[in-house]
Amino acid sequence: MPLLKSWVSSANDPANPFPLNNLPYGVFATQGTAPRCGVAIGDMILDMQSAEENRLIDLTDAALFELPFWNDLMEEGPAVWAALRKRLTALLAEGAPERDKVAPLLVPMDRAEMHMPLMVSEYTDFYAGRHHATNVGTMFRGAENALPPNWLHIPIGYNGRASSVVVSGTDIRRPWGQLKSPDQDKPAFLPCRRFDLELEIGAIVGVASDGPITVQEADNNIFGYVLLNDWSARDIQAWEYQPLGPFQAKATATSISPWIVTRAALEPFRTDTPAREFELLDHLKDCGPMLYDVDLSVTLAPEGKAETTIARTNYKEMYYSSAQQLAHHTTSGCPMNVGDLLGSGTISGPGKSQRGSLLELSWGGKEPLTLDSGETRTFLEDGDTLSLHGAAQGDGYTIGFGACTGTVLPALDDPYSR
Amino acid sequence: MPLLKSWVSSANDPANPFPLNNLPYGVFATQGTAPRCGVAIGDMILDMQSAEENRLIDLTDAALFELPFWNDLMEEGPAVWAALRKRLTALLAEGAPERDKVAPLLVPMDRAEMHMPLMVSEYTDFYAGRHHATNVGTMFRGAENALPPNWLHIPIGYNGRASSVVVSGTDIRRPWGQLKSPDQDKPAFLPCRRFDLELEIGAIVGVASDGPITVQEADNNIFGYVLLNDWSARDIQAWEYQPLGPFQAKATATSISPWIVTRAALEPFRTDTPAREFELLDHLKDCGPMLYDVDLSVTLAPEGKAETTIARTNYKEMYYSSAQQLAHHTTSGCPMNVGDLLGSGTISGPGKSQRGSLLELSWGGKEPLTLDSGETRTFLEDGDTLSLHGAAQGDGYTIGFGACTGTVLPALDDPYSR
Repeated sequence: MPLLKSWVSSANDPANPFPLNNLPYGVFATQGTAPRCGVAIGDMILDMQSAEENRLIDLTDAALFELPFWNDLMEEGPAVWAALRKRLTALLAEGAPERDKVAPLLVPMDRAEMHMPLMVSEYTDFYAGRHHATNVGTMFRGAENALPPNWLHIPIGYNGRASSVVVSGTDIRRPWGQLKSPDQDKPAFLPCRRFDLELEIGAIVGVASDGPITVQEADNNIFGYVLLNDWSARDIQAWEYQPLGPFQAKATATSISPWIVTRAALEPFRTDTPAREFELLDHLKDCGPMLYDVDLSVTLAPEGKAETTIARTNYKEMYYSSAQQLAHHTTSGCPMNVGDLLGSGTISGPGKSQRGSLLELSWGGKEPLTLDSGETRTFLEDGDTLSLHGAAQGDGYTIGFGACTGTVLPALDDPYSR
Repeated sequence: MPLLKSWVSSANDPANPFPLNNLPYGVFATQGTAPRCGVAIGDMILDMQSAEENRLIDLTDAALFELPFWNDLMEEGPAVWAALRKRLTALLAEGAPERDKVAPLLVPMDRAEMHMPLMVSEYTDFYAGRHHATNVGTMFRGAENALPPNWLHIPIGYNGRASSVVVSGTDIRRPWGQLKSPDQDKPAFLPCRRFDLELEIGAIVGVASDGPITVQEADNNIFGYVLLNDWSARDIQAWEYQPLGPFQAKATATSISPWIVTRAALEPFRTDTPAREFELLDHLKDCGPMLYDVDLSVTLAPEGKAETTIARTNYKEMYYSSAQQLAHHTTSGCPMNVGDLLGSGTISGPGKSQRGSLLELSWGGKEPLTLDSGETRTFLEDGDTLSLHGAAQGDGYTIGFGACTGTVLPALDDPYSR
C-alpha cells in the first residue's frame, strides 16, 4: 500500500510517523482544556470530542468520545472500529469535501500534553522473546539450561499490576525494596540498585471473551498496539521471585507510548513467526503471519547530556505473537475484558547491540556500556531519560507510535516520611 | 463485648452468624428486583438502596447505594464507614425508635440471591501460611528446603486475575490446559485432572494509596474480609509455573463469600501473629495483634450425597497478616485502589486434618481421603460441591461470613466448539 495523501501536508512527509495510513488514537489536553480523545495526523491532532459534537463523526447512537479514553470505542466492536477508520480516512484525505469543517478542530501536536489513551482493565506481561529468555536463562542457569522446559510450548506470562501503568512522559521514581546481596546473611530494605528497562510492545484487547478462544479469534479481538517499557528492579526481583514470580520488582511503573496504533494500520507489515523446532499444539498454532515488521530502538540520555542509542531490534524477533499470547491467556476459561493490556515480553534480537534490557546489554552488570557522552552504564542512574521508539517502514511512509519516555528520579530519602 | 440485642429476633440467636455485632455487607436480588446493596441481620437483609431513598441512611451529599456494589461507600473513607456502622446499629437495636420505618425494608434472606458484593479492582494472592508453604515445599523440594530463603522475610505473593473472581454459588467449570505428565515427552492440551481448592481469607482494600505505606496505615486501609477459594489446577500449574509463577492454573475462578465482614466487626477477635525466628524488617513489623481468631472449615459433598468436613483450621495460623501483605504490596510504590482484593494464601494448621487444600490433604494425591459417603478423593471430581465456612465466636454470639460455595462442572468436550 502506498502513502495515502492527506490535506494535512505534514502527514505526507515520508518521515512523519503519523501519515493518513496510520491514524493512531491518543488522549490529549491543551492549556485550558480537559483531556479528550484525539487522532494524530502529521504534526496535528484531530479533537475527536469536538468532531463528534459537530456531527462529523456520527457512527453510533451513543456518544463514543465523551470520556477521555478510547474504551468506549473499543466496546463497540470491530465493525465500528472499521467504520471509524474509514470515516477518518475520508475526512482527512486530500480533496475531502469536509476539509473546512475539520480544519478548525486540528490542534498542533506541540501544544498538546498527552494522557493515558485507555483505562487499563488488567495487565499481563509475557516472556515470549526467545533471545531475551535465552540471554537471561544463560546468565542465571547456564547455556545448557537457558530455556525452561515449557518455554517452546507455551507463551510464559504472569499477571502484572494495571494500577502501575503510566503514559510516556511520566517520571519514574526509583523504588525501595527488600534486597539481599549474595554476600549478606540477611535482607535489607534499601533503594533499588539495579533498575532496568524492558523494551516491549503492548497489545490492547478490544473485545471481551468468556472462555477459550482460538488464535484467529484472539487476533480479531486485538484493538491495537503501543510501545511498552516494563521498568524492572532486578535486585528486588532476584530476592522475591521464587517460587511465585516477579511482584514488587515490576510494580513501580510500566510506561506506554501515547498513541495506540491500530491493528488495521499495521496490517501491511505482518510477518511470520520464527521457525520452531517443536510444533505448537493446535490451540496455539499460527493462523497466518502473526508478527509485525516494526523497527524498535532504545535511547538513553544522562541528565543534561545527549542521548545514545543503546539497542536496535525488531518486533518480528518474538517467538509468540500477541494473538497467541491472548489465546493462551483464555485456555483456562479466564475472562478477558476490553482494555486488558498484554506486554509482549522483552524484545531482543540475536546480536549484542539488539538486546532490549540493560541486564542483557551489560550482561548482568559485568560489561558496562559506554555512552556517547563517555559515561558508562550497567543499570539506570538517577536522571537518566529512557526512550523507546518504534517505526514500520511503508512504501513512502512511516507508521510510528510516538516515543515512550521516562526519566528516573532519585529514590526518596525515607519512603515513609510524608 | 457481649451480644448486642436487635429487634430482629433471629439476630439474637447465639448461633446465628449475623447478629447486630456483625452487620456484614452484600449485594442481593429478589424475584423482580435488580441487585442492590444489603446488610445481613439475623435471617433478614436490610435493603440499603431503599433505606437511603427513604432517608433512613443520609450520611453524605452523594448517594452511596445507587450502584449494586459497596465501592461507593468504601470511597468515602473510614470516618463514613464508622458513621454508617453506628447508624445501622442504632436503626436495628432493640428499642430503636425507627423500627416501624425499617421493618418494611427487611427482606427474608432465603428469598434473596446473592451477587458480587464489590467491583474487584485488582486481585493479588499471597502464600503466607507457614504450614501450607512447608507442606507444599516438602512435597516438591524435600523437608530441608521446604521454605524458600525469602519466605520468613517477606510475604510472597503474585498478581492474580480480577476478572476471574466470582461470588459464592457460581458453578466452576473444570478447565482445560496444557499439561505434561512426567512420563510423557511432550505436553498435551487436556482437561485438568488435579483440580483443587485453596481455603483463604480475602482482605478488601478500602482506601487508595500511591506510595509505600506502613503496616498501621495498611491496617487502617482495609475495609473488610471475605472467605476466598482460590480454585487451582495443580497439573497446569506444575507445567507452567517456572520461572514466572502461576498463571492459567489460577485463572479459571476465585470464589468469595457473599458477605463482606467489616474490620470493625472483627476487632474483638484480634490475635497475635506466631513467634518468628527472624525478626521482620521495620517496614513489616507487627503493630499490635494483626490476625483474627476465625474458625474455618471446608466441606465436600459429592453430587447427590451428604457433605463431609474435610478440614478445620483457623485464620490465626497465618504467618503474615493482610495488613503486612498490603504494606509489602506498596513498598515499590505500587498504587493500590479501592476494591483491590488480597488473598491471604492457603490457611493450613499444623495437623493433618487442618490442611486447606486437597494437595496437602491427600499429600500430592498419594493418600486419598475417605468421605462419609465411603467415596475417596485425591482431587476434586465433577459434581463435587465445595464450601468454605468461617466463624468468630464471641461471648454469646457468632460472627459469620456466609458459606463460600461452588460446584465443579465437567470440562467441556471441546472448549473451542461454540
